[in-house]
Amino acid sequence: MKTIIKNGTVVSETEMYQADVLIENGKISAIGRNFVEADACVLDASGQYVMPGAVDAHTHISLQAGACHTTDDFFTGTRSAVCGGTTSVIEHLAFGPENCSLRYQIERYKKAAEGKAVIDYGLHGVFQQVDSATLQEMEELAAEGIASFKIYLTYAFALSDADALRVFRKAAELGTPIAVHCENDSIVNYNRARLVSEGKTAPRYHALSRPNECEAEAVGRMLHIAHMAGDAPLYIVHLSARESLQAVREARAHGQKNVYVETCPQYLLLTDEVYERKDALKFVMSPPIRKAEDTEALWQGLADGSIDVVATDYCPFNFATDKQLGKDDFTKCPNGGTGIEERVMAMFSAGVMQGRITPSQFVKLLSTNPARIYGAYPQKGAILPGTDADIILIEPQAQGEISIRNMHGVVDYTIFEGMRLQGCLRIVLSRGEIVYRDGVFTGQEGTGRFLVRRV
Amino acid sequence: MKTIIKNGTVVSETEMYQADVLIENGKISAIGRNFVEADACVLDASGQYVMPGAVDAHTHISLQAGACHTTDDFFTGTRSAVCGGTTSVIEHLAFGPENCSLRYQIERYKKAAEGKAVIDYGLHGVFQQVDSATLQEMEELAAEGIASFKIYLTYAFALSDADALRVFRKAAELGTPIAVHCENDSIVNYNRARLVSEGKTAPRYHALSRPNECEAEAVGRMLHIAHMAGDAPLYIVHLSARESLQAVREARAHGQKNVYVETCPQYLLLTDEVYERKDALKFVMSPPIRKAEDTEALWQGLADGSIDVVATDYCPFNFATDKQLGKDDFTKCPNGGTGIEERVMAMFSAGVMQGRITPSQFVKLLSTNPARIYGAYPQKGAILPGTDADIILIEPQAQGEISIRNMHGVVDYTIFEGMRLQGCLRIVLSRGEIVYRDGVFTGQEGTGRFLVRRV
Amino acid sequence: MKTIIKNGTVVSETEMYQADVLIENGKISAIGRNFVEADACVLDASGQYVMPGAVDAHTHISLQAGACHTTDDFFTGTRSAVCGGTTSVIEHLAFGPENCSLRYQIERYKKAAEGKAVIDYGLHGVFQQVDSATLQEMEELAAEGIASFKIYLTYAFALSDADALRVFRKAAELGTPIAVHCENDSIVNYNRARLVSEGKTAPRYHALSRPNECEAEAVGRMLHIAHMAGDAPLYIVHLSARESLQAVREARAHGQKNVYVETCPQYLLLTDEVYERKDALKFVMSPPIRKAEDTEALWQGLADGSIDVVATDYCPFNFATDKQLGKDDFTKCPNGGTGIEERVMAMFSAGVMQGRITPSQFVKLLSTNPARIYGAYPQKGAILPGTDADIILIEPQAQGEISIRNMHGVVDYTIFEGMRLQGCLRIVLSRGEIVYRDGVFTGQEGTGRFLVRRV
Amino acid sequence: MKTIIKNGTVVSETEMYQADVLIENGKISAIGRNFVEADACVLDASGQYVMPGAVDAHTHISLQAGACHTTDDFFTGTRSAVCGGTTSVIEHLAFGPENCSLRYQIERYKKAAEGKAVIDYGLHGVFQQVDSATLQEMEELAAEGIASFKIYLTYAFALSDADALRVFRKAAELGTPIAVHCENDSIVNYNRARLVSEGKTAPRYHALSRPNECEAEAVGRMLHIAHMAGDAPLYIVHLSARESLQAVREARAHGQKNVYVETCPQYLLLTDEVYERKDALKFVMSPPIRKAEDTEALWQGLADGSIDVVATDYCPFNFATDKQLGKDDFTKCPNGGTGIEERVMAMFSAGVMQGRITPSQFVKLLSTNPARIYGAYPQKGAILPGTDADIILIEPQAQGEISIRNMHGVVDYTIFEGMRLQGCLRIVLSRGEIVYRDGVFTGQEGTGRFLVRRV
Repeated sequence: MKTIIKNGTVVSETEMYQADVLIENGKISAIGRNFVEADACVLDASGQYVMPGAVDAHTHISLQAGACHTTDDFFTGTRSAVCGGTTSVIEHLAFGPENCSLRYQIERYKKAAEGKAVIDYGLHGVFQQVDSATLQEMEELAAEGIASFKIYLTYAFALSDADALRVFRKAAELGTPIAVHCENDSIVNYNRARLVSEGKTAPRYHALSRPNECEAEAVGRMLHIAHMAGDAPLYIVHLSARESLQAVREARAHGQKNVYVETCPQYLLLTDEVYERKDALKFVMSPPIRKAEDTEALWQGLADGSIDVVATDYCPFNFATDKQLGKDDFTKCPNGGTGIEERVMAMFSAGVMQGRITPSQFVKLLSTNPARIYGAYPQKGAILPGTDADIILIEPQAQGEISIRNMHGVVDYTIFEGMRLQGCLRIVLSRGEIVYRDGVFTGQEGTGRFLVRRV
Repeated sequence: MKTIIKNGTVVSETEMYQADVLIENGKISAIGRNFVEADACVLDASGQYVMPGAVDAHTHISLQAGACHTTDDFFTGTRSAVCGGTTSVIEHLAFGPENCSLRYQIERYKKAAEGKAVIDYGLHGVFQQVDSATLQEMEELAAEGIASFKIYLTYAFALSDADALRVFRKAAELGTPIAVHCENDSIVNYNRARLVSEGKTAPRYHALSRPNECEAEAVGRMLHIAHMAGDAPLYIVHLSARESLQAVREARAHGQKNVYVETCPQYLLLTDEVYERKDALKFVMSPPIRKAEDTEALWQGLADGSIDVVATDYCPFNFATDKQLGKDDFTKCPNGGTGIEERVMAMFSAGVMQGRITPSQFVKLLSTNPARIYGAYPQKGAILPGTDADIILIEPQAQGEISIRNMHGVVDYTIFEGMRLQGCLRIVLSRGEIVYRDGVFTGQEGTGRFLVRRV
Repeated sequence: MKTIIKNGTVVSETEMYQADVLIENGKISAIGRNFVEADACVLDASGQYVMPGAVDAHTHISLQAGACHTTDDFFTGTRSAVCGGTTSVIEHLAFGPENCSLRYQIERYKKAAEGKAVIDYGLHGVFQQVDSATLQEMEELAAEGIASFKIYLTYAFALSDADALRVFRKAAELGTPIAVHCENDSIVNYNRARLVSEGKTAPRYHALSRPNECEAEAVGRMLHIAHMAGDAPLYIVHLSARESLQAVREARAHGQKNVYVETCPQYLLLTDEVYERKDALKFVMSPPIRKAEDTEALWQGLADGSIDVVATDYCPFNFATDKQLGKDDFTKCPNGGTGIEERVMAMFSAGVMQGRITPSQFVKLLSTNPARIYGAYPQKGAILPGTDADIILIEPQAQGEISIRNMHGVVDYTIFEGMRLQGCLRIVLSRGEIVYRDGVFTGQEGTGRFLVRRV
Repeated sequence: MKTIIKNGTVVSETEMYQADVLIENGKISAIGRNFVEADACVLDASGQYVMPGAVDAHTHISLQAGACHTTDDFFTGTRSAVCGGTTSVIEHLAFGPENCSLRYQIERYKKAAEGKAVIDYGLHGVFQQVDSATLQEMEELAAEGIASFKIYLTYAFALSDADALRVFRKAAELGTPIAVHCENDSIVNYNRARLVSEGKTAPRYHALSRPNECEAEAVGRMLHIAHMAGDAPLYIVHLSARESLQAVREARAHGQKNVYVETCPQYLLLTDEVYERKDALKFVMSPPIRKAEDTEALWQGLADGSIDVVATDYCPFNFATDKQLGKDDFTKCPNGGTGIEERVMAMFSAGVMQGRITPSQFVKLLSTNPARIYGAYPQKGAILPGTDADIILIEPQAQGEISIRNMHGVVDYTIFEGMRLQGCLRIVLSRGEIVYRDGVFTGQEGTGRFLVRRV
């Protein structure tokens, strides 16, 4: 079975050019001019961008947080992803039982995803404790395609600096990026307790409890500790504060290598005015939504290459029920927001169509870079001969709107409700199959495969 | 007539991947896997890099300097180029008669190149005086494919700052880059006169007469003046001093756009010890060869992206005759050196094979960037469907040596004599034709065409 | 004859402390507590600051510019100075006849000042041409107490870069600071001609003809050239643009020594809105008044120590007559403004009393630094045993207003008309004599002496 | 009783000038010329510097560490101090019993010092736990003259980040500097355990267990946390690593206020080669002795004003006995070194006489700044009318040597043994009394008073 995408503008991380794309057996077999194949299915991409499918390197599709579980399983979550133009996800795992092995959670998630996911999925290992057994597991899991690990500096299994160092030392040896949630646990907990004791429990205090410096401090600390480990690959997830970005720039200017920065659409498109809204609980997530100066700095970071990746930190809880747990006390509200379906077109519209980033930068930030950093490139993240035919077609001259009414998910709200979109997603191919077309999901539960990643 | 390059590693400015390249009618028609064409000529590129042909954006193939003329015409000069892996040149013109129009020299050079050049050639316009007529010519010539202009801050037709500003204002309107030779004329002339009056006429004093700060000052001045013109496109030719690079970095950090930096192999591979050699006159060129700290800084600039282009400033005079004019007084020596044939493999060996730059950075610096900045991209500088089939094949595991003995030119020396090479140029295609193969020039005089450039 | 200043707060460039000051024979003989001297004149300074008299290192008291002469001679000019708290001036000389020696103008000014000046006065030598004779004069004049020289990069006797280098080389040898008027002559003249040819002759175009970059470029160029001369002492007069200050900061961060920066009250207290006023001609001076971002940057430079000196560039022409020459064409307006009487209290009020600089920084910027840099310290600029008793008493809790009505000069306007002052100048002593008290000039024509300066 | 110091060169933090100093009743009453007093004791200071007595802001004269006690009590410790030119100390206290109040230790130390100290002494409060009681004590103690507090980030009573924040919040309110020992406790303990488990117990491993980044990370963290508290006054003790200094520079460049940096002579004069010596145990202190690049960076920091204070971290244990506890395991060695008697002349010789800092910078770093930052200025740290007559006379043209043979202390070694000195301490006055003269201690036990400090 062959498919030809004809007459489109192919966009890579550096180039835009007119070409046809020939797909055979789920892979791209050729890129060229005037392809004619008698037996091929032809998709006319005139006036459209032909881009590598987006990679969402930071999802929490399935997460138990206290009494609440995210609204999704791997079928509904990846269906939302693909209806938004994302053709691979790399899931950050929930914590398992105390003292469980790294593999324990990996196996649970593999089982949860298998037969459910509609697109290919990778998994980041997650650390709860650091000991010789878990460090040994890093090596084994990396060999099996789990080429990255997550550590937390806050929440239940916050690692000490020494344990972070031990993980980084192993990572430097293996080349596996360590994704780090950077916030100062000690300060955050103090702030929360203080605010609650002062009766300051409205959602706006969530933001005040986690100020910019809490993040910037932790980012600076991790830069030092990764450096002590010989410039171990450090991937800072959901960077939101301008001071954090500045710290990264300075470390790089001093010569530190292997530092990667991720931000998310919510830190680019929203400002802390949301906490004055009636539905402020929708925006209780960590880090919190920041100020306009921060969004400005982050857009600048996208444009100048200081930020490498835009992912979602997708973590959906229903507003009508789950989020209401926080209505009298922000510390009771399950943290997290939406975005898996919104990310691609929101960034295309606000980034590319408003001239803040080029189409090539868009491809780099949402697809090529996350694939490359996390070891899935060029299988994912590129339109090149031999790579998986994960491709999206976007029509820049069409328009749309983000609204829960026309989305494909389960969660009952979107943080971007009402956002006008310039540009429209037309077609999504996953390994050569059309899985989305003009608003309709056309894929099949269970066709997604575990993504073996190598660094 | 079709050609297939099979089994090679295609290298773009960002990617390396296995693919076959199909060429039809002098253009790339497809890139893919397992191409089979009954009637095609097949080139086996196993174990080789398949790269876009190099672009030399700074040549003086044909230049009269005082009593001397460069050793080349457009046949011999471009033959040398192509035997070194360069498939396009953009020539910097000599000055014409006083008060001549821009077009006057363009026409002279077009005539000189036509029927002679073996590869495609562009021409930079050159300013001798700035007035409303020449500013008007900029617009007309740009429309005819002369999408760049050169100004000098020293030598016979050094422009005043005000005239430079007038050129930049027009350039900002047209989008045409202005290539600038940056040295402080006043200081250089003072230094030369002072040294000669002190009897300091040996070649080493050539270097002392043009210190780093002379260049860095002029670079800083042009950055300011281009900025006054609304960030007009400023292309700094043959940057050689670390302080100059620092000035560019700071201007960019302050937000200045449209600044491009070129350096040359001689500023990367040689140090000022050459002026202590017996054959020191070979290295009398401007700017002069610098110190080891400068070469170090320039390599760093290549690696971190601060430098955009590596070109040659090729300007060949025979050592046995022309250069000897300077034997008793460096100010009498015609300025210039070799490099058009040496550049590609010298940079491949010292840059790529010694790990200072990646193969993709090599492609970017020697091919993609000069083509893009000067408006020849993607016709030149890329391996993409629809572009000219200017392609080189390099075998990284073979070895060679730079020596005048095995070169294809007319000039009687090379500044890199004796340099051992890791990597060997195997085949060069110019618009689909094999023009060089394993040491032998196989092209034809006069097949090169005028390169119409658009910005 | 002895004088004791009792009960005041003595302010040095770093300290504030309660002490009495004993003066004998025009010099400070002791600083201490509880001084009692039967035969001394006692000045009660309770509630007042006791500060070293201000030094104005940049005046044009007597200057012929085209058809106009400044309104002052050395009597009226220094009388204004002292009534404002300035007890020494260092005059920048007008140009003399073509090819005149440095000494020619020095002698003229010495003659003009002798028997007229009411306070001590120094003179900066001024370059019109650079040759072996003038370079030799530098050495002789420095030995006679002319420890500094001025060069211009614009106006009638603008020096070439090479000539500037020659002056700097000599200055590096002698240690004498070179005061430089930094503007790009070529660009300024082009802008002026262009604006006039476009009929843009209103005062506001004066500012547009000399944009920030014109100054910043020239500052950058001089930094390079002073550096080529071995970090010769470079003193940048009337710095006004934030980009210029940034250039100085970067040069210092790269290790350049012996760079000094002067700004003036008009660049701190006024913004370019003045050019929209009816009396805009009052503000035609070079550099022009800048934007609010510049004033902000300059105040920051005072606070962080990047700027060394606040002087006036005093150059008074009558508004009713002289300045009107420019009413139809800004290029015809004699350049210059007022300030010699206003500087000290304007800076005290806007700087110290508004908390932007400390009293010690005020002393440093207006008195200690100019004296030290130009070789008059500690004779001037300090309250220490053995130094000249040039002292001012300021009462911070009193108030006043700058108005031509209550000034002591000849010129018919002040650029700061209507400015409210917090703080009031009470008493001024020049070498121990009370020359100003509570609004009344009590000095005598001709008591000022030539100030021999040594570096 | 009056004393006159005649004919010396008085040195302040900014000035050097010839003057006599008159002392009455232990205080300076006047500074002037040609003082004649019939009944005064006259000290001839011809050819000598007259400087404010040095302040040692970081001593551990009396400290119990495990089984060991420092060799001194307040008599012997301050006798050593004064014989080296130090006329005030501010002692950092040992920890008291668990949960003791701040005042508990203050009282113990007051008792220990009273009747023993020969010079005036201040005390820094020390935190062991942070709670509402200790925060309340800060306020009370500050009112009693304890205007500074110490917190540790490592050792037994390492504070959490949240507790540090609470202390900084209170400090911002009171204006009291918080002295912080900055090292990453988690990493240091991990390194120590790892090295010991690998059998790496020689003294050189002490240095490896506390790398530069351990300090720089903690410095960066404290900068952030002090900033969160509204730029609370942060005083970084014994800064030793170049990266730490860089972090401070960057924070200041970003606008952070109230940051103070202290270093010590051992980090300026010794390099880590000491750990290869037989007597390496002498140098087991924290932070450890660093590399030559660090000493170079620290000297640069003294010269450019980035470092504010040079103190000792004096903490003497006998080499023959106490230090030997570490001979088989560096973790068993009591930490600390000598310096209270050596600091002033070592810094004078290596700093002033070798041209790295000026005499005024020397005075600022060793006397004026510590007095000012910690609230003892101008009573201490200045030669001004009304201040305590704590004065030292140094003869720059005399020579000496640091050796345990000619010192006045109890500890059995000096870390600077054999260092040749250019410059010789002649006389020390403490509140007007001569307490040291030409090698002989002439003071009296118990004349020192508790130093009430106010910020």
